[in-house]
Amino acid sequence: MEDRLRKQMNFILEVDKLKKIGRQTYLSDASRKENDAEHSWHLALMTLLLSEHANTEIDVQKVITMVLIHDIVEIDAGDTYAYDEAAKLSQRAREEKAADRIFNLLPQDQAQKFRAIWEEFEERKTPEALFARTLDNAQPMMLNDATDGRAWREHHVKKSQVMGRNKDTHKGSEKIWEYLESMVNENVRKGNIIDE
Amino acid sequence: MEDRLRKQMNFILEVDKLKKIGRQTYLSDASRKENDAEHSWHLALMTLLLSEHANTEIDVQKVITMVLIHDIVEIDAGDTYAYDEAAKLSQRAREEKAADRIFNLLPQDQAQKFRAIWEEFEERKTPEALFARTLDNAQPMMLNDATDGRAWREHHVKKSQVMGRNKDTHKGSEKIWEYLESMVNENVRKGNIIDE
Repeated sequence: MEDRLRKQMNFILEVDKLKKIGRQTYLSDASRKENDAEHSWHLALMTLLLSEHANTEIDVQKVITMVLIHDIVEIDAGDTYAYDEAAKLSQRAREEKAADRIFNLLPQDQAQKFRAIWEEFEERKTPEALFARTLDNAQPMMLNDATDGRAWREHHVKKSQVMGRNKDTHKGSEKIWEYLESMVNENVRKGNIIDE
Repeated sequence: MEDRLRKQMNFILEVDKLKKIGRQTYLSDASRKENDAEHSWHLALMTLLLSEHANTEIDVQKVITMVLIHDIVEIDAGDTYAYDEAAKLSQRAREEKAADRIFNLLPQDQAQKFRAIWEEFEERKTPEALFARTLDNAQPMMLNDATDGRAWREHHVKKSQVMGRNKDTHKGSEKIWEYLESMVNENVRKGNIIDE
């Protein structure tokens, strides 16, 4: 068998492990928490539907690639919860090492392409990276809202934390951020997010 | 809030249910079976990596859209196992009804676009639909192979069934089918697939 296809198939099997990486967000029916593969599928679908609300013209296929692979490093590095400040200190080093191992399972050209797109997402500068971040922040907020703020309540999350984490969310889409901001305020009003 | 964004967000929350639709395929570590959202994520990533092996030039973004939404009808219609001949008889009617309800949660233009792409996938005629089918067949076979044929063994699957189900798999990619066919033969040799 050709070496190129074999490498691609090995990578495809390796990243099956993303289905085992748990997140802190509950499904909309609150029956269990979601995993990274489910989350990534959700973001890709959101990209198709919501790209029209981006602040500037974006390359939709690049954003889709970005969101499909953005969490793959967590196969080795684990999921770092948005409000776990201790874990966030070592996050970058753990994720770099994971990227070195996992993307390099691919043929060299595809390894370089995926690695570059992951770095672009991490750097949060291009319109595509900013829009992908907007969706990556929006999706758990929508699920939290649907479960009457369950993950927020369990972690005693404060409004200042939510607003700090979302300080750049408007940079991908003012329109989506406007929607989310009113959702945050409603959850503060209900006591799901603490207004200290 | 603008009606268009509200409809999009309602659809995005509704399809969260895809994470609860179980499939018959085990994850690569055999710890549990996968669900439709995980499967769809896997297919989208496979599209990005493997589109170079398609028999003809394909519109990659259309295939990605196709695989991201191809199972959404199962939210209402349920998953129909590949070798459950009784369930397959009523499958089309159940899925049409589901498509009518679910896609119409979207703004009209997006509802029509998604419905058309889902129909194109179902009809199995265009290069994009044929390639999406090739991946939709390849992915569970790769997981079955990784688990030493567990789902095949549990369902006492025969080689004639596998070959029948895959009679058109080569139409999307001769190269990928060649890889899969040798995988099938290896699993027949190991007794994971019954050679009657």
